[in-house]
Amino acid sequence: MSTKALIGIIMGSDSDLPIMKKAVDVCREFDVPFELKILSAHRTPDQHADWARNAASRGLKVIIAAAGMAAHLPGVTAAQTILPVIGVPMKGKSLEGNDALYSIVQMPPGIPVATVAIDGAKNAALLAIQILATADQNLQSKLIDYKKKIAVESMNKNSNLEY
Amino acid sequence: MSTKALIGIIMGSDSDLPIMKKAVDVCREFDVPFELKILSAHRTPDQHADWARNAASRGLKVIIAAAGMAAHLPGVTAAQTILPVIGVPMKGKSLEGNDALYSIVQMPPGIPVATVAIDGAKNAALLAIQILATADQNLQSKLIDYKKKIAVESMNKNSNLEY
Amino acid sequence: MSTKALIGIIMGSDSDLPIMKKAVDVCREFDVPFELKILSAHRTPDQHADWARNAASRGLKVIIAAAGMAAHLPGVTAAQTILPVIGVPMKGKSLEGNDALYSIVQMPPGIPVATVAIDGAKNAALLAIQILATADQNLQSKLIDYKKKIAVESMNKNSNLEY
Amino acid sequence: MSTKALIGIIMGSDSDLPIMKKAVDVCREFDVPFELKILSAHRTPDQHADWARNAASRGLKVIIAAAGMAAHLPGVTAAQTILPVIGVPMKGKSLEGNDALYSIVQMPPGIPVATVAIDGAKNAALLAIQILATADQNLQSKLIDYKKKIAVESMNKNSNLEY
Amino acid sequence: MSTKALIGIIMGSDSDLPIMKKAVDVCREFDVPFELKILSAHRTPDQHADWARNAASRGLKVIIAAAGMAAHLPGVTAAQTILPVIGVPMKGKSLEGNDALYSIVQMPPGIPVATVAIDGAKNAALLAIQILATADQNLQSKLIDYKKKIAVESMNKNSNLEY
Amino acid sequence: MSTKALIGIIMGSDSDLPIMKKAVDVCREFDVPFELKILSAHRTPDQHADWARNAASRGLKVIIAAAGMAAHLPGVTAAQTILPVIGVPMKGKSLEGNDALYSIVQMPPGIPVATVAIDGAKNAALLAIQILATADQNLQSKLIDYKKKIAVESMNKNSNLEY
Amino acid sequence: MSTKALIGIIMGSDSDLPIMKKAVDVCREFDVPFELKILSAHRTPDQHADWARNAASRGLKVIIAAAGMAAHLPGVTAAQTILPVIGVPMKGKSLEGNDALYSIVQMPPGIPVATVAIDGAKNAALLAIQILATADQNLQSKLIDYKKKIAVESMNKNSNLEY
Amino acid sequence: MSTKALIGIIMGSDSDLPIMKKAVDVCREFDVPFELKILSAHRTPDQHADWARNAASRGLKVIIAAAGMAAHLPGVTAAQTILPVIGVPMKGKSLEGNDALYSIVQMPPGIPVATVAIDGAKNAALLAIQILATADQNLQSKLIDYKKKIAVESMNKNSNLEY
Repeated sequence: MSTKALIGIIMGSDSDLPIMKKAVDVCREFDVPFELKILSAHRTPDQHADWARNAASRGLKVIIAAAGMAAHLPGVTAAQTILPVIGVPMKGKSLEGNDALYSIVQMPPGIPVATVAIDGAKNAALLAIQILATADQNLQSKLIDYKKKIAVESMNKNSNLEY
Repeated sequence: MSTKALIGIIMGSDSDLPIMKKAVDVCREFDVPFELKILSAHRTPDQHADWARNAASRGLKVIIAAAGMAAHLPGVTAAQTILPVIGVPMKGKSLEGNDALYSIVQMPPGIPVATVAIDGAKNAALLAIQILATADQNLQSKLIDYKKKIAVESMNKNSNLEY
Repeated sequence: MSTKALIGIIMGSDSDLPIMKKAVDVCREFDVPFELKILSAHRTPDQHADWARNAASRGLKVIIAAAGMAAHLPGVTAAQTILPVIGVPMKGKSLEGNDALYSIVQMPPGIPVATVAIDGAKNAALLAIQILATADQNLQSKLIDYKKKIAVESMNKNSNLEY
Repeated sequence: MSTKALIGIIMGSDSDLPIMKKAVDVCREFDVPFELKILSAHRTPDQHADWARNAASRGLKVIIAAAGMAAHLPGVTAAQTILPVIGVPMKGKSLEGNDALYSIVQMPPGIPVATVAIDGAKNAALLAIQILATADQNLQSKLIDYKKKIAVESMNKNSNLEY
Repeated sequence: MSTKALIGIIMGSDSDLPIMKKAVDVCREFDVPFELKILSAHRTPDQHADWARNAASRGLKVIIAAAGMAAHLPGVTAAQTILPVIGVPMKGKSLEGNDALYSIVQMPPGIPVATVAIDGAKNAALLAIQILATADQNLQSKLIDYKKKIAVESMNKNSNLEY
Repeated sequence: MSTKALIGIIMGSDSDLPIMKKAVDVCREFDVPFELKILSAHRTPDQHADWARNAASRGLKVIIAAAGMAAHLPGVTAAQTILPVIGVPMKGKSLEGNDALYSIVQMPPGIPVATVAIDGAKNAALLAIQILATADQNLQSKLIDYKKKIAVESMNKNSNLEY
Repeated sequence: MSTKALIGIIMGSDSDLPIMKKAVDVCREFDVPFELKILSAHRTPDQHADWARNAASRGLKVIIAAAGMAAHLPGVTAAQTILPVIGVPMKGKSLEGNDALYSIVQMPPGIPVATVAIDGAKNAALLAIQILATADQNLQSKLIDYKKKIAVESMNKNSNLEY
Repeated sequence: MSTKALIGIIMGSDSDLPIMKKAVDVCREFDVPFELKILSAHRTPDQHADWARNAASRGLKVIIAAAGMAAHLPGVTAAQTILPVIGVPMKGKSLEGNDALYSIVQMPPGIPVATVAIDGAKNAALLAIQILATADQNLQSKLIDYKKKIAVESMNKNSNLEY
């Protein structure tokens, strides 16, 4: 993407990419430049801290961080930046996603993480765009159109129901 | 507050106010104008829909919605606006807050809610301010100062520990 | 169906239809006219509110609302009508249905939702018919017959057990 | 109460009465005759079966059954009658009400129980009245008034909020 | 089986039989006569109550009752007999067996059910035989042999491990 | 108690005694000799193994074992004896008793534990007596009387209800 | 403490100290030098990273890290050191400790945390001493004595039981 | 392995071996001699107790114990030794691993078990090696190299991401 990224998408492992691809698709649909990186709170803590610490100065406005199990990535990102951090809990092989959800949403007072649904990559990107839109009328229009579009799509499903 | 509100704080019941008061305190600490209202997704659905539908045009930039039990308020607010909606799950008399948490965070694709911790009113307001700060350098500075302040306070606790 | 619908069956998404088809089958088995619609509390809130607000005046007597994840559809339906609303929690991709169950059953005082089992579409329709039967002797007879039939079927299973 | 009871309220133990008293209050508020009885699925199964089997012929139209822990009362009542049965899970000393909730809501296909929130006695009675109202215009008017009243009460809470 | 049954095995549905077959196998392995029946607490409550009420007088000494979801069968059996009742929670399509487990194990004071693991049919039969063995030296010997056998089998697994 | 104990009651810690006292009371009510001991699967494993290994030869017929948290006592007792072992999960300071419940009930195939409700000491003793009664007509009569008594007590509660 | 600390005890907040005091007491009982510090993964991430990165070179052999809610402290400590890290989940105001437990124990492959029970400060210190004892015969003797002592104490509780 | 084992790996059943093979692989990767055995807390309690009691004198320094369901093996091992015991909860057929996790991690004060993630065999071995490394500079170097290697591998994943 040629223009400067506004949304940073990071994830703990490339195994999260198939799910997180939906966030990428939303960014592209709304034509919002983004960057995407594998960064682990546990395996590459210093590279992560550097990335998160400099995110704002490099022009990022919002960060989306996805992780599973003891999902620390969103929280430790929030610890290093004043940018809004959106956390996406990934469903793992056990506990039905409760581990990642609790690890991300239950942040202590002072350091918030904006948590979306388990495997909620699409909503993470939409939320990021809603945040950007608070200061961007063009994105506001796109969001209004998007909301209309999904309403129409939803209503249209009534035409061909077979039961 | 004399200036136009940027943050809307709504809650399902006035019994949520003692917890949500912490969000108010943060808004005041950062000098960000807000409005606060009791609006129920279930008891006053039309008044709520009106409020949410007009939130953006009245100048609000972010909405904080708190609710307990089958906590629908954040989700139905998000259904009516393109503003970012922050959901605060309130711990109720049973289920340890899991009911409100799941009811708020598990939003379907298309309509995100930025969920914070159970009873996480303070972080909800900080997140709202982080969102406003993406387009407000003054708030950015305040957030940087706040982050420094809580770091210092945290480190200072080491001086007088008795054990 | 030619006669005026007595039961309204709504669901958040057409992906709920394979499960909800069982409710349709029960309505047909008892020869009770129904209508079925995709209506989303989040994607089409206003169309939904209109539908729910007018449900009683259009002649509906009971509403069945199915939804998954942060399942708000039954609750916001109940907010708009004095008709009995039956909620069917749909099992989603994570959390084993607990998210939808809590989102539907934990309604606050004042606005009840009659919740059935996770994916309990068949029982939702039976409950709707029990409700109609409180003022319809023909349906009462059919329910008594149905109860006898499932008892006989259950006992008959003992004849050919292999073990 | 002099007129013939339309709603039967049963509970497994008199320790459930302080919570279930709220259901009684709603019946009185709506002037709907009811009867109330302690009947245990486990300690008095035959007396219970008799009561449930004859509930319809004695004129009852809806049954509210409350129980805690392995809460079988609503389910075994539903097994003996074609009347709609409303189940109220009572929070016990452990498991935060999950035991009673699952024991009541997860009924197998064929025998529904209309489950309300944990300790949701008030909503159980309101649901019973909604069911009666499907064939009673007077109760419909009262429910419409009730809905208006709680909306007004909810909105009025905004006048004196201190924060 | 020609001799009089000592163990009664009942289950709510024939879909439980593949799991409960393991209880049958244990009874056969220990040469303990048993009977097996489909009896539903919800679909055939009266047939069930008759069966349970007469279980002791027909010579049964222990009852094994299996059920899933809102698993009431063990509890309502215990309500009708002074025989020890062993409950087997069956894993259903959602909630990972927690619904059946809580519905069976959380019996109120006065009416115990001896609960085994989710889908624990084999242990249910072993427990029944342990109970019979409290007054049967032949079964005691068999149980001692069984315990030795599974210990030997367990230790023997060490000979051919590949890793 | 002068006669030889038939029921052995063990618990991991004397902090379990206030709850387990209810099991003692039931034994006394039914006049069944018992012994009671603090034995820890973790702190006194060898004393425990000795006790459990010799329980049968010393004349015990049934064992009740109570423990909290990672409640191993019932399971390791069952590993050392062919006597029926009844497990009582004790509610601890966190997790609402789920930890003890799962640790006791989820025994692997081959070694059953008869699990009762969380803090279900009374039912543990009643179950032990039901087991003894399978070979003791006197206890059978007492159990029949007990069942009648609690039924009468339950029905009598209807006389003085105030609501 | 004059000698060089072998065990580092850190916690996210001084509100954890009343619980973690039990770890201090065990260190003192075994005469093992330790240091204790408030360090937050979220409020003071850099000070924490420095501390953890230099823990080994300063002579620490084991680290105990306690945290509640989205308890990231143990995990991010393990990310910065090859020393064994023991995590203590603290019970918070909701979710019964499940949030902290999952956040600590569910570490991804490559970066282990040795997790103890919720609020298990005492065991954390005992585990740290067991680890030190693998290379310290004096500590081995003390642990053997400790094990004997708690066994004796446990058995002695049998002398004065009143029931 | 020719040299004397330092790590003992035990598991309740050979069905745990496919998961526990990952612990074996780590031991081999770090060239640390180990022994592996099937030992059941329930089926072979005495053989297990012997093994655990003599583990230290035979030269073992750390024990890894894996078990599922009511996973008692780690706890009863810890009861018999002062060696550090690492517990690996195995996900079973129901409850998503919560049963094994609670059964292992919730050890009572006095007898710790170092618990790793559900199915966390790899981390169990890494933790064992971290423990050995507290007194072995060669292993310390290897762990430092391992940490570098997984960091490099993690960062390298960024080169070929397709999205």
